[in-house]
Amino acid sequence: MARIVMKFGGTSVADLDRIRAVAKRVKREADAGHEVAVVVSAMAGVTDQLVAWSREAAGGPPDQREYDSVVASGEQVTCGLTALALQQLGAKARSWLGWQVPVETDDAHGRARIQSIPLDGLRSRIATGEIGVVAGFQGIGPDGRVTTLGRGGSDTSAVALAAALEAERCDIFTDVDGVYTSDPRIVARARKLDKITYEEMLELASQGAKVLQTRSVEVAMNHRVRVQVLSSFNDTPGTMVVDEDEIVEQRVVSGIAYSRDDAQVTLLKVPDRPGVAAGIFGPLADAAINVDMIVQNISDDGRFTDLTFTVGRGDLDRAVMVLEAGRAQLGYTAIKPNKDVVKVSVIGVGMRSHAGVAQLMFKTLAENGINILVISTSEIKVSVLIAEKYAELALRALHTAYGLDAA
Amino acid sequence: MARIVMKFGGTSVADLDRIRAVAKRVKREADAGHEVAVVVSAMAGVTDQLVAWSREAAGGPPDQREYDSVVASGEQVTCGLTALALQQLGAKARSWLGWQVPVETDDAHGRARIQSIPLDGLRSRIATGEIGVVAGFQGIGPDGRVTTLGRGGSDTSAVALAAALEAERCDIFTDVDGVYTSDPRIVARARKLDKITYEEMLELASQGAKVLQTRSVEVAMNHRVRVQVLSSFNDTPGTMVVDEDEIVEQRVVSGIAYSRDDAQVTLLKVPDRPGVAAGIFGPLADAAINVDMIVQNISDDGRFTDLTFTVGRGDLDRAVMVLEAGRAQLGYTAIKPNKDVVKVSVIGVGMRSHAGVAQLMFKTLAENGINILVISTSEIKVSVLIAEKYAELALRALHTAYGLDAA
Repeated sequence: MARIVMKFGGTSVADLDRIRAVAKRVKREADAGHEVAVVVSAMAGVTDQLVAWSREAAGGPPDQREYDSVVASGEQVTCGLTALALQQLGAKARSWLGWQVPVETDDAHGRARIQSIPLDGLRSRIATGEIGVVAGFQGIGPDGRVTTLGRGGSDTSAVALAAALEAERCDIFTDVDGVYTSDPRIVARARKLDKITYEEMLELASQGAKVLQTRSVEVAMNHRVRVQVLSSFNDTPGTMVVDEDEIVEQRVVSGIAYSRDDAQVTLLKVPDRPGVAAGIFGPLADAAINVDMIVQNISDDGRFTDLTFTVGRGDLDRAVMVLEAGRAQLGYTAIKPNKDVVKVSVIGVGMRSHAGVAQLMFKTLAENGINILVISTSEIKVSVLIAEKYAELALRALHTAYGLDAA
Repeated sequence: MARIVMKFGGTSVADLDRIRAVAKRVKREADAGHEVAVVVSAMAGVTDQLVAWSREAAGGPPDQREYDSVVASGEQVTCGLTALALQQLGAKARSWLGWQVPVETDDAHGRARIQSIPLDGLRSRIATGEIGVVAGFQGIGPDGRVTTLGRGGSDTSAVALAAALEAERCDIFTDVDGVYTSDPRIVARARKLDKITYEEMLELASQGAKVLQTRSVEVAMNHRVRVQVLSSFNDTPGTMVVDEDEIVEQRVVSGIAYSRDDAQVTLLKVPDRPGVAAGIFGPLADAAINVDMIVQNISDDGRFTDLTFTVGRGDLDRAVMVLEAGRAQLGYTAIKPNKDVVKVSVIGVGMRSHAGVAQLMFKTLAENGINILVISTSEIKVSVLIAEKYAELALRALHTAYGLDAA
């Protein structure tokens, strides 16, 4: 007898047949005596359609409050249909929309954050054996209007609900059967991990592994929610995301992630004087352009510096515009934008206690003739920016070098 | 400067182009200085899809509470998109879902009735010049769950909102440009009426004219809401539904309606004794089968009677089953069900003061060789049931006989 939250993504509820399969899987847990809350996304493709319509109606970026209300309708459909499919199997079930739970968020429409989930109604109903089917991705803002949590937000809905319900486990059902040491589509010898720490999962998610929304991992870590990532299409156990002390067999490196979401900008011959960094990155921040990796090289005579940094690939054109506008003031000689880059990251909590992890990465890349453009590190991660054409080669070589290949 | 409610049906918001056309039309009224609330239906076809999914997920008639939540999502999409299209034109606008207004209904999910609309928020917002775009068809029940008002319910949403707002007018935009003396697809010489009384409109709606939901006319009549039916595809004035005293030029007959929704049931040789009608119609009422027209003929010897009545065509099979089950007790000799019938109705408030209206109907049908199966009358209506094959002939002949043909 446990209380569990089960979350199903868009491909898992893509049509009526799959919704019925979801209902069967959920009912099995209820039949085993568990108290169950289910969180569902919209049918695959529906959210994209609603987003496109909103942009078309608005003739550009839509009013985020209207956008949220339109887009949230997708989850409204699937949570009702899932409740009906559960009833059809003889289970007690009802749907809960974000405003009905209520999932209270801040007013940052389009990327709202959950503030609290005062779910007395839902909690007491599922305690009677009724399955609660909750619309993911949506909440209600302080103004009483519908909010959404950003793409992938249903993961966060599920984890936050699990925290509020003090659930024993939050199962995230998806179209992969767990978290892998690297992307199996590229690295054929990638292995599924049985367990991974919150910190590693957070780095993996933010470094491009699409398996969980970053924010959901933060919430899980903050509230110590045991999250399992597993497949909705088979019955094999997935990957548990847990506290570090739950992992007995320590690895130095847990995974190699990559992201094609970045672009590189180099400014040549920036006068090397105090305040130049602020002069460059201030206007970018004002334009809401996020800067990630930064490298500064001092040039021969010490009077000029070359500055390289990365921005989101979608922000590159805007970033160049902002910098062009400040050219006279910044005094650089040229901007070199570059979209053909990929960020590769080696991640593992074991790095804290093991030296030489970064060195092995640099050596491996060098042996394969891959030039490193930018480096950044954190406590449990080393990331490098390389030319995009080397992405597959780098991933496979690093996977082997860190001893992650499947037997 | 007036306060008006504008309602657009599913074909008027069927795609983004049409939604933009709706926005233009609405903005024109706002630009003229009016306070405007807009009520929209779901995109044409969307509700049918959602209903089909609900039935499929449930494997039969769905839980009406889940059904309501799923189906209401259609209007959620269009009201958000309409607000965005209005903003794109430079208008101030926001969407309102049923639970946000709130449109408070009873708990009869799937066919809920509006109880009250405490719309202080909406009222004060539109008073500032902001256009309120309200999702039609939906409300919130006493249990805090989404309710819907039944097919065509957006008409009722609009009229009830107009009543609550004390609006000067409720414009119902549709794919026809008004109320006609008869169905123009059948009666080529049918004329558009400039005005029609609530009572006549109510009879027309309940006798099969699909232009307005019956319930919406009741609400308009009870609250004296001036309703205009007009086309969303052109700018010609429509038909005003108004109080009788607003109509200067009195007609005896305003329209000829027809309905193919009925079926006839005849029970032969029912023993003619007290309580027999209760024995027949009681079980039908218990099975929620609505009986409309009833005729009883005494047979030759006075000991038996033949009983004929009509039920909804969709209820016919069930009605026959109920009556078969009671056969031993009821003692009739045979049931004759008949789906090939049509109900034709002559409607006009002038009947109250003019004799001979029914007689002209019977005479006209007789001259055309059309046999009358059942007759029923009300204060402002005479209806007859005839064989379905005569429907067109009857409509045209009556239209001419009552002097309704266009010049």
